[in-house]
Formats: sequence, C-alpha cells, structure tokens
Amino acid sequence: MRLDVPPGRGWCAARFRVRYAETDAAGVVHHAAYLPWFEEGRSELSRQVGAPYSELEKRGVDLVVVKVEARYRVAARYDDQVVVWTRLSEVGSRRCVFTYQVVREADGELLVTGSTEHVALSRASGRPTRIPEPFLSRYAGAAAVP
Amino acid sequence: MRLDVPPGRGWCAARFRVRYAETDAAGVVHHAAYLPWFEEGRSELSRQVGAPYSELEKRGVDLVVVKVEARYRVAARYDDQVVVWTRLSEVGSRRCVFTYQVVREADGELLVTGSTEHVALSRASGRPTRIPEPFLSRYAGAAAVP
Amino acid sequence: MRLDVPPGRGWCAARFRVRYAETDAAGVVHHAAYLPWFEEGRSELSRQVGAPYSELEKRGVDLVVVKVEARYRVAARYDDQVVVWTRLSEVGSRRCVFTYQVVREADGELLVTGSTEHVALSRASGRPTRIPEPFLSRYAGAAAVP
Amino acid sequence: MRLDVPPGRGWCAARFRVRYAETDAAGVVHHAAYLPWFEEGRSELSRQVGAPYSELEKRGVDLVVVKVEARYRVAARYDDQVVVWTRLSEVGSRRCVFTYQVVREADGELLVTGSTEHVALSRASGRPTRIPEPFLSRYAGAAAVP
Repeated sequence: MRLDVPPGRGWCAARFRVRYAETDAAGVVHHAAYLPWFEEGRSELSRQVGAPYSELEKRGVDLVVVKVEARYRVAARYDDQVVVWTRLSEVGSRRCVFTYQVVREADGELLVTGSTEHVALSRASGRPTRIPEPFLSRYAGAAAVP
Repeated sequence: MRLDVPPGRGWCAARFRVRYAETDAAGVVHHAAYLPWFEEGRSELSRQVGAPYSELEKRGVDLVVVKVEARYRVAARYDDQVVVWTRLSEVGSRRCVFTYQVVREADGELLVTGSTEHVALSRASGRPTRIPEPFLSRYAGAAAVP
Repeated sequence: MRLDVPPGRGWCAARFRVRYAETDAAGVVHHAAYLPWFEEGRSELSRQVGAPYSELEKRGVDLVVVKVEARYRVAARYDDQVVVWTRLSEVGSRRCVFTYQVVREADGELLVTGSTEHVALSRASGRPTRIPEPFLSRYAGAAAVP
Repeated sequence: MRLDVPPGRGWCAARFRVRYAETDAAGVVHHAAYLPWFEEGRSELSRQVGAPYSELEKRGVDLVVVKVEARYRVAARYDDQVVVWTRLSEVGSRRCVFTYQVVREADGELLVTGSTEHVALSRASGRPTRIPEPFLSRYAGAAAVP
C-alpha cells in the first residue's frame, strides 16, 4: 500500500532517518522503537498548532498515555527516511487520541499505523485534570479539521 | 486492582527490577519500555515450555510482531520489582497471540495489561511460514492449559 | 579471556538475560545497551551496601554521570545470561567512580569493561553537593575493601 | 562554554530534536542516549563523504565499536534542538576513530564530547579485515582535512 501524499487535512508530518540503534537482530527496526516515533509525531503536531508539549509540562500537566495500539505492515530499516503522519482524532476536556501513519519516503510505502490515548494528569495531585487553555482549544481546533 | 497470585494456570512469570534508564522526565517508566518487558515475558514462557525463541531463530523462523496493544493503569517506578505474567492465548500453525499482565511485586498492583500478535516468517524468503515442530506443538500445549 | 570467579573482593554481581530489544542489525547487543547494564550494576551494589540509589534520590541528590568509558572485547547475544561485576573504585565527598566487568555466565568470557564517574548534584540547586550520610560512609566502606 | 560556529573544517553536522523517550527521571536526557546520537553523527558524516555505512554493511563489513568515551558537561532536555558535530580523527586500513561535540542550538552551549574507536570486521568470518575501497580512501580524505 502506497501513500504518496499527506493522508489528508489535519495530518502533521515529522521526518527523520532510522537510527542503527533502533534495529534489532532480525535486521529491521524493533517494534518498540515506533512508540518514540509516535511520540515525536505528536510532539511535532503540538508544536505546529502552537501548543507545545514542553509548555504544557511547565503548566504542571502531563498527557499520560493510557492506551497504545500499533499494527505493523512492513518493517523499516536502518538509514530509511521515514515520515510519521500524526492527527488528533479525538479531543475532550480531559483526554485525547492521536492517530499515526508511518510511511517510508522513498516509495510511499505505509509501514505502521497506530494510535495513543491520553488523559491529562496534574503532576501535583497525580489526578485527572482539565487540559488547560489555550492548549485545549488549540488541540480541539486541530482535531476539528475535516 | 490487586493480583496477589498467579493470574491462573498457563501463566508464566518473568521477574526483574525497573532500570533507571527505563524512566522518563515524568518520573515514571516510559510507556515504550513495557514492550521489551512483554518480549522478555514471552521469551521466558518459550524457554519454560522447552521451545526457546533463540532456537526458533536458528531454524530460520522469526515470530514477527504484527500488532501490539497495551493499557496503562498505574506507572512503575525506578527500583520497583515487577512480574510480567505471560500467557499464550491463541496458537495457530502460522500465528500466535501472547497476553500480558505486569504486576508490582510489593503490593500486587496490576500496572499494565497488553497483548502481541505474531506471524511466523521465514527469514530466507521473508514470507509467512508454518511454525516448525516441536515449537508448534509446545506452544499449542501451553495455550491449551485451561 | 575467562573470569570464572568474582574478580575479587568488593565486587558485586548483577545477573540477567540479554533482551531481544537490546540487539541490533549486526545480530549482537548494541554498544549503547551496556550503559544501562552498568547502571543496573551500580544500583545493585548500592542496594547491597545499604545505600540504595532510590533513597539518595529521595534526599534530593543525584549522582550525575560526568564521564563514561567502555571497552568492547566480545559481543553479547540475545538470550545470553550475563553478570555485571561492579566495584566502587574511588569515593570522595562529592564524587565517585564505579568500575565494571561484564561476563558471559556460560563460559566466563569477559565481554566488556568500563567505568563511570559521578558527581553529587543537589536537585534543588543544580549544584555540586556533598554525598549525604549514611550514603557517603557506606560507599567509602565498599570502596575500601582491599 | 559556547560553540557558535562549526568547530572547524572536517566537522559534519547532524541536527535533531531531543525526544521525550530519551529523558529519564532526573528530568534530563539519560547519559546512554547520547551514544545513538554519536552513531547518527557518524552515519551522517559517512553519507556526506559518499561512503554511507549502509553500503559498507552490504559489502559484508561492520565497523564494530571497540571503545567509547563520553564526557558530560551540561544536560540536554526534552524538545531541545541539538547538533552533533562529528569528525573522523584517525583512519587506518582496519580501524578508525570518530570524535563528537554535542551542542545545544539555542545558545551554542557545548553539552557533551566523546569519541568512538572502531575496527572493521568481516561479517562472514567475524575477523578483522581491511576497510574496502572506496570507503577507506573517502574516510581517509575526510580525516585529512586540516
């Protein structure tokens, strides 16, 4: 399956090379290595919508991962240039869901898809909290793109 | 939720300490770090049923991960002693599914649950293949425990 | 080179299996993976001398790594059982040095040697500080073993 | 200490953002995470001199790491933009040494310095071998820059 163009509106691209340290003895990228790529995808999206995750942390709020799903179709290899397409697929006042498509740049092959679900936790109390403004409305705006 | 005993028959325990390198800036174990723990859980199970993964590799067969799911309930921390309970929940001639429960030893708290789905690939051809004997019957035996 | 016995008095053993996630596309353990093993070695030593690192952290003090050296002789592989021998080779009021020998259990082969140098930093001020008691005297005791 | 310009001729830049997964519970980048950055630095250098490491591997030769040294001056943090400056400081027919300087882009602060020593191993025999042409002369050319 090929994806030659952005998967659609509302998707944000993070691009990088596969590192040797991300491979395993099967000669391909280890399946756990895609989770930091997803994380980098949502980091990039939050920067691009003007709501960087590093700023949210300074406000004492973490978007804790409560669920991860990943489906592996084709393995990436060392030195491949990849794009992680990321979209905010759901946003509520205390939770959100990001969706990912990892694509090999050379030929547009779709490698891995996945999603992560998050809840906002106050670092002080360790309890669920509202995503503070302006983060909530910026995330909601990103998710509303048709 | 507490799990003070093995979750049931057919579950295999892998025990270890949380490493500092597995934590992140939120002060707890990074969500991606649980995937190598799952992997260590299924490694231990395959050793215990007499079908070690390292031997399967020598036969030229990889059990490639095609799907991962994880749900995060409570975060592990540096120095925690944890148990990864692993069970073979489905076994077919070319695929299998492992299920995991990660528990903190100190108080039996259930931290994370998850599953991984695998297909057998021939390393030579890169194509799906039958899980060779005696691996298949040993995995099937482990899965059949009621 | 074989090491069939503890390298000497004052050395502490941490034992574990090599994880698949620690290997790379060259089929052996990635060179960066030994650093978390060193860390686990010094964690174990600090537990055994009654001065666990997790307690030091609670006192607001980090033993920050300022220098790492590692020499790689023979590569570890997936499923190998390894021992990380760790020794406190220098202890001062604000700094200490740990020395490591990683050995394959099956045949006593010496795989990797290394050292890490640390300074005590106050987490509050970010500045060098004295290693608090009773940590300092316990580390000094461990280092003094002839 | 600030480095506002390339450290000199013969240095190659690899730029990227610090990933959240690279941090640890002390709130900064874990010391082991710099080793994959060094690796990415030498990957980029070998691409830029027309001798990509992925091609060397296809020739059946690995540049195995036999020694690592790193000195940590200032810690990188999540979301920092960093540059890894890499230089080939020694090249022989069977071995080479890379030197690294990791710099924070925002203010030119020198964070970490280090070096890695490599020997060429034949993947078939597991024994030291000559770095094949044109890799050897391209590496030698890169190292000769005054």
